Order: sequence, then C-alpha cells, then structure tokens
Amino acid sequence: MLKSLQNDLLLEAESKDLKVIIISAEGPVFSSGHDLKELTEEQGRDYHSEVFQTCSEVMMLIRNHPVPIIAMVNGLATAAGCQLVASCDIAVASDKSSFATPGVNIGLFCSTPGVALGRAVPRKVALEMLFTGEPISAQEAMLHGLLSKVVPEEQLEEETMKIAKKIASVSRPVVSLGKATFYKQLYQDLGTAYSLTSKVMVDNLAMQDGQEGIKAFMQKRKPTWS
Amino acid sequence: MLKSLQNDLLLEAESKDLKVIIISAEGPVFSSGHDLKELTEEQGRDYHSEVFQTCSEVMMLIRNHPVPIIAMVNGLATAAGCQLVASCDIAVASDKSSFATPGVNIGLFCSTPGVALGRAVPRKVALEMLFTGEPISAQEAMLHGLLSKVVPEEQLEEETMKIAKKIASVSRPVVSLGKATFYKQLYQDLGTAYSLTSKVMVDNLAMQDGQEGIKAFMQKRKPTWS
Amino acid sequence: MLKSLQNDLLLEAESKDLKVIIISAEGPVFSSGHDLKELTEEQGRDYHSEVFQTCSEVMMLIRNHPVPIIAMVNGLATAAGCQLVASCDIAVASDKSSFATPGVNIGLFCSTPGVALGRAVPRKVALEMLFTGEPISAQEAMLHGLLSKVVPEEQLEEETMKIAKKIASVSRPVVSLGKATFYKQLYQDLGTAYSLTSKVMVDNLAMQDGQEGIKAFMQKRKPTWS
Repeated sequence: MLKSLQNDLLLEAESKDLKVIIISAEGPVFSSGHDLKELTEEQGRDYHSEVFQTCSEVMMLIRNHPVPIIAMVNGLATAAGCQLVASCDIAVASDKSSFATPGVNIGLFCSTPGVALGRAVPRKVALEMLFTGEPISAQEAMLHGLLSKVVPEEQLEEETMKIAKKIASVSRPVVSLGKATFYKQLYQDLGTAYSLTSKVMVDNLAMQDGQEGIKAFMQKRKPTWS
Repeated sequence: MLKSLQNDLLLEAESKDLKVIIISAEGPVFSSGHDLKELTEEQGRDYHSEVFQTCSEVMMLIRNHPVPIIAMVNGLATAAGCQLVASCDIAVASDKSSFATPGVNIGLFCSTPGVALGRAVPRKVALEMLFTGEPISAQEAMLHGLLSKVVPEEQLEEETMKIAKKIASVSRPVVSLGKATFYKQLYQDLGTAYSLTSKVMVDNLAMQDGQEGIKAFMQKRKPTWS
Repeated sequence: MLKSLQNDLLLEAESKDLKVIIISAEGPVFSSGHDLKELTEEQGRDYHSEVFQTCSEVMMLIRNHPVPIIAMVNGLATAAGCQLVASCDIAVASDKSSFATPGVNIGLFCSTPGVALGRAVPRKVALEMLFTGEPISAQEAMLHGLLSKVVPEEQLEEETMKIAKKIASVSRPVVSLGKATFYKQLYQDLGTAYSLTSKVMVDNLAMQDGQEGIKAFMQKRKPTWS
C-alpha cells in the first residue's frame, strides 16, 4: 500500500497538467495505518526498518511534492493513517470522521505518527492522543489545527473539489514555488526566513506567470497562465 | 507607505514616554498589502528587491521594537496587510474584519506574508489560505491564533484602548525586557531558554522597577514606576 | 515547595510500579507561583538565581521524567503556577479554573513562565497574557492548547483519573520511550525526526512489550505487559 501510494504520488509529478492531488479512501475507514502482519517478530528487524523507512519516505514526499496534496477524510484515521492526514498540506473531513494514535494499546507507541501530529496540533493535544490512544472528533481535530475544514458527509466531495478546483485554476509553477518556500522558511529564524522569501518574491515576479498576473490585474482582465 | 510606517515606528522609540503603539487604518480596508504598480516589470528587479527588503525591515522592526505593538483591525487585511497583523504582538479586530493571502490569484504567491502567517496559525490553516487565496473570518482568525481578541465594531476602539492603557500603566523597561526575551527564547531549545530566562528574571529583580514592584506588593501599596 | 515537588517527582521515578503522576492542589488556588518573600532585595542576587535555577530544574524534570505527568487544576494558576500547568504533558481543569501571568503588575515580567506558555499556546495569546497580566478562562485555555480537557468541577477527579488509569493500563517502558522520543523529535527538522522515530519504532517492536502487544493483537487476546 505504501509503495503503491508512493508510486501514485510520483506518477506524472513533473507534468504541467498535474495541479493538485486528493488522497481519499473507500469504505468507513480512511486508513488504520500499518498492517500489523508486517510488524511481527517473524518478519524481522530489517523488514521492520524497511517498512518505517518507506512510510517516512511517503510522508516526506507529500511535503516535497511540487503540487498541494489534500486529504479527503470520511471515517476513521488512526496511527499512520492519522499521520497521513497530518502530513497533507490541506485536510478536509466529514463530521463523522475521527482521529487517533492508538499504538500504545498494542505496545507500539505511535512515534512516527507523532512527528506529523506534533507539528500539526498543540503539544498537549498530541500527547493526550499518544498516551491514551483515545480518538478525537473531526470538530476537535479542526479546532486544534489537524484539519482545514469539517463538513457534513454529503458535502465532503463538493467542498474538497471546490478547494482543488481553485488550486487547479491558478499557476502551477507559482504554487510549487510557494509550497516549497513555505516549508523551507517555516523552521528558519525570522531574519533568514525574510531573506529567503524576499528573494523568492522577486524571483516570482520575474516568472512568466508572475508578470502575466500583475499585467492582467492592471489591465483588469483574467490572467492566462503558462 | 512602508517607509512612512517605518519612520513612525522609529519616532521616539527610545523615549521613556512611549509605552505602546497601535496600528490602525481609516476606511473599510485595514491594508491590502503592496501597491501592485510598484511590482510591474517596468519597475525592474532592483526596485522589487528594495520593496520587499523594506517590507521585511518593517515587519522585523515590529518584533524588535522596545514597546508592544497592537494591530487594531476594522475591515479587510490581505497579503502584506495580513502579514502586518500577524507580525504585531497583539491584534484586536472587529467581527466584520477578514483576512486573506490572495497573491496566488495574481501569480504572486504570498511567500513573505507566509513567514508571519506560518508563525501565527497552524500549518494547515496557513496553507489553505495561501493556496486558495480565500479569506477567513475574524472569528476563525482568533480561533487559529492570528488575533488576540474579536469584538463588535462599536467596541473595537474601547477594547483596544483597554489593552493599551493596561500596558501603558506598567513599567516600560520591564515590558521591553520581557518582549525582547520572549521572542529570543521562543526558538531556543528548552534548556537554553531556561538558562536565558532565569538570568533575565534575576536581572529584572535587580532593576529599579523590579525592586519597587516587589516592595510595593509587600507593603500592599501601588508601585511607582521609574 | 519547589524542592519538595522536585523530591516528590524523583521519588521512585525509576520504579516499574510508577506509571503516571498527577499534580494537584488543595484549596481555591492551584498555584500562584513564586513566594515573593524569596525575591526581595534582602535575599540577594545569588539566592534569586538559586530560586529560578530550581524552578527551571523542576519544569525540565517534568519533561524528562520517564512517566506522563498530568496537571489536575481546580482554581487559579498564575505565574510559575501557570508555567507548571503548561509544562505538564497533559492538563485537565475544572471550568472554574483560570490562568494568568501577572508578573508585569509587580514589575517582574513572567519571562520563565513565558518559556512554557510560549510553547503551549499561540504567540499572540501568550503575549497578551504576558503584557497585560489579565487571566484567561479554562475554556479559552483549552481552545488555545494550554489544557487537554475542561470539565465541570464535580467531574474533574473522575475525568483525570480516567486518563491516568488508561495510561497506567499500558506498558510503562513503551510509554517512557514514546514520551522521550516525542519531545526529542519535536524540534528537529523533518528528515532528522523521521530518521530518529523510524529507528525508535523498530526498537519498540523488539522490546518485550512490543512483541507481546503485536502477538496479543494477532491472537485477539489482551496483552500481558512486562
């Protein structure tokens, strides 16, 4: 599943026609994380290492991907499934969805999910989820920053597509530059972050779509992206 | 405008009579950010660099300023205007205010606003704003940490002045030391942050106003600040 | 008080029978922070240094402690008392509780409390509290990440014990490894954090309780922790 997701994310990643990716699931569970059959003693340490290595690669691929990646969640997202939601750039969920990191119940603390969760929600929210394994509702997840939006189930696809279509309507090179820059500056000190982003703004203005966007605005017409 | 704001912020910055600054606007827009006429191809790369350099200087001046700076927002704050709100120490807004980073619509991703926004709200909130350009309400902005307080329009000035007057009633040297220390320790590791702040507490106690404050408390009287 | 708390936290910290710690108080105040009699001019700089050194040691001991530490708050938590709540891994409070960092009122900015507060709530919330000294309600504290849960006073103990009992029912070595790893990875860059936690997951699987947990899950039975 992880390799398949990785391949799907890499598929035509560099194509100019790819503007945005939506990750969704069929059935009542968005994702319940790792298949525990892969984590038994019999599989062995090397195999376990490979599993978590692949998982981390997928999560980092989402961040490093040139287009925005949206999680569309309708149901339960647990452990690495919760990590997947936390790792996406945007996450929309139905109000029946819930989120948990229950590894502690089976003696396997959700340490890798904690990487993404700890960067998405306040520390105390993350720790209560990690220490107790108890789920939080979609509403709580949104209040704490794990989700961008919560909607009734019947509006989930419409609302997600609205965001996706909006992103697909703007310039891919501009969005790509913006996404890469956002994550890069986020962990820099303020001075370094402003040096980087000031230069990026100037570069962005020099791009074909940057010039076209400003011109179109001045001429009060719709821009035509490259 | 940026140079004027910079000069205003620097005006008597070192005066003991300056205790707090409020940044507000006239009309239905708090700030819509850069004047796009300054960002056309004709103005050229060097001029663009200067614009963003000045903008970053203003935002960093707010953080490095010796007194607290409050944004009082009544209306729309977009792009660098949203960045300005995010950069202030405290932000109070009327409930009709809204906030957006719509640069993506004109092919110019709000990368510099993203520096301040990404440090004020959760990552997913910032990214949805940056990728879609859609506004969030004052209520949402407060829930996510962009604002300190939201009030009905007719109470905006009163509520902001209440905060400002409170700050003006305490010791300027103590507040200055506190502000500078807060931002310095915020990005340090916990051990370094506690070493720094423990020393600052001891220094604060040795200040004239630190000694006066403790004495007044012991003697159950109002302190007289330096 | 700080030394007593330190000793209590260290008491049997390494015992396998210790699973979780709850810090609570008697009376209407959870903690109002430092005893100002210890901070007078007469006590002198060296003594002041020792006080803040001890305080920081206690706060860092909470983070570095092998078991989760829960603050159960029923009343006012101010200054270093607010810092104590912010420093715990989990915090449950009654709805009548409130939280403030009022040092500025006595000329002693809450710079050490700001370390914990600034890592628990958004920057603007922390700064308004620090600059004005005004309290926030339990509800606000929860919305902003300072608390894990708010309940009516009569349910405070029950709700806190529910969380504590849940933690006490899982494996101590697994929880200890998870807690230490969570705080370690939280301030690393994403790649480093995933390298660390991927290795920790593999180590966790090789632990006695990791193997038992997976086996029990496969065999559809309750695990028996070491």
